Amino acid sequence: MTPQHALNNFADPAPASASDAHPLDQACSLQIRPDGLLDGATHPAYANMVGPFGGVIAATLLNAPLSSPERLGDPVALTVNFAAPITDGPFQIRRQATRTNRSTQHWSIELLQQDQVCATASAVFAIRRETWSSTEITAPMMPDPNCVPVWKMLKPLAWPRSYRMQFTQGALDELTAEGMDGDSASSLWIRDEPARPLDFLSLTAISDAFFPRIFLRRGRWTPIGTVSMTTYFHACADTLAAQGSESVFGSARAQHFGKGFSDQTAELWGRDGTLLANSHQIVYFKE
Amino acid sequence: MTPQHALNNFADPAPASASDAHPLDQACSLQIRPDGLLDGATHPAYANMVGPFGGVIAATLLNAPLSSPERLGDPVALTVNFAAPITDGPFQIRRQATRTNRSTQHWSIELLQQDQVCATASAVFAIRRETWSSTEITAPMMPDPNCVPVWKMLKPLAWPRSYRMQFTQGALDELTAEGMDGDSASSLWIRDEPARPLDFLSLTAISDAFFPRIFLRRGRWTPIGTVSMTTYFHACADTLAAQGSESVFGSARAQHFGKGFSDQTAELWGRDGTLLANSHQIVYFKE
Repeated sequence: MTPQHALNNFADPAPASASDAHPLDQACSLQIRPDGLLDGATHPAYANMVGPFGGVIAATLLNAPLSSPERLGDPVALTVNFAAPITDGPFQIRRQATRTNRSTQHWSIELLQQDQVCATASAVFAIRRETWSSTEITAPMMPDPNCVPVWKMLKPLAWPRSYRMQFTQGALDELTAEGMDGDSASSLWIRDEPARPLDFLSLTAISDAFFPRIFLRRGRWTPIGTVSMTTYFHACADTLAAQGSESVFGSARAQHFGKGFSDQTAELWGRDGTLLANSHQIVYFKE
Repeated sequence: MTPQHALNNFADPAPASASDAHPLDQACSLQIRPDGLLDGATHPAYANMVGPFGGVIAATLLNAPLSSPERLGDPVALTVNFAAPITDGPFQIRRQATRTNRSTQHWSIELLQQDQVCATASAVFAIRRETWSSTEITAPMMPDPNCVPVWKMLKPLAWPRSYRMQFTQGALDELTAEGMDGDSASSLWIRDEPARPLDFLSLTAISDAFFPRIFLRRGRWTPIGTVSMTTYFHACADTLAAQGSESVFGSARAQHFGKGFSDQTAELWGRDGTLLANSHQIVYFKE
């Protein structure tokens, strides 16, 4: 997908070669420039109320080192800081391997629009190897996805339509003022729509696909913005590939809201009960 | 404290003016150079088995923007990536405000030794203001600190002696092979030793002061290293100052160990039950 195409959010389809790719792969695609910067662009399938869905921006930022010929191993940690609003259209990404060790590699990444930094990220990659292992937290109740209704969003918002969500707890349409006395926990089966084999890009995007916890607590939509998000990957590429295109099970909740910011902590589980990733973020809210 | 002093880990005391300061303030102190870099040095009071205690390095990295005349508001989020071993002695810190908005500010920070990047960090600052607030998680049982014995470390390790720790669960001297069947949870009262009024520097360092969870699960000391740590600050400067020099209550646990890495998630509570911060990290382990 060329950046030019992305500017026309609802225009003609892209050329056959580009439109054959899954929208997520189109959205995360980066073209290297002679000066070493990478060209990318927002994608209409992942439009948010204003600008793009942050999860796909996070995935695109991860794709900068992931697609580098210098890359060592698999992602272990990704932190994305959303520094300023991103406008629909083209952007540039600057990537730098700040340190390469024998089995780990550290990257610093920036997303620029009009030469201004709109997002920064850091990523740790590592060659994973077999060690002692233990999942200390208990996997949640994961009802058979065939028995959970597919959620339909009432708002005309693009990015949620790029996911198949099946809530077992805390769906957004349960918004009521009573939420203030309850908790902000949500659980759901979620996968790309159309279906796409799970990888680090889709898992990164999904780790930001939980609706803001404050919507559930306040019982209404309020102005929010994720400020910083960190995802720890417990699965390596092979484990993700073994999930195929099936839904993963996500659970998210807040710990604290106050003084304009709230946190969110989330886990993403494979259908077989494997903890694939956990993710934490801090979110600005207005009131 | 001059970097030269820090090189002599167990040498003569620093000059009177420096030694009057609390060791943490000495350890986090930075001197600006004509080229804009900041000079700092590791401190003997926070020596780890090899190199310095990561928590004080994290605090020092935070101190770069915190001590900048350009700084806006209070820290909200800090991510530190430990990219390579830090050697006892001097280091340089490079700080850059990547984006300053009306009420938020983003920083990128690097720690260098011999012109090589040994750590990177990002920090989000914000002008905090009163909003709706709610702490969704339940505060843990916090026994009267006067009734909890002060923990004494048997190993001759410097940094734990710079803290007063009173464990109520999961102390390190409970290491037994049975740990493998249990969980990795620890809870303790903790403060600087000697006592020091709580601020963002000490809270940052304390958020890394939990011993590696894998020690508790494997029942023994094993080679580990924190690779990336993220702390979210829920308290503003006034709330921290109101805690005075009293201990805070910390709880930490792991969610998953495997393929050479484990995570840790922790909360830090004020004595009055205020959630001051939560912190997440991913840790390399060898076997």
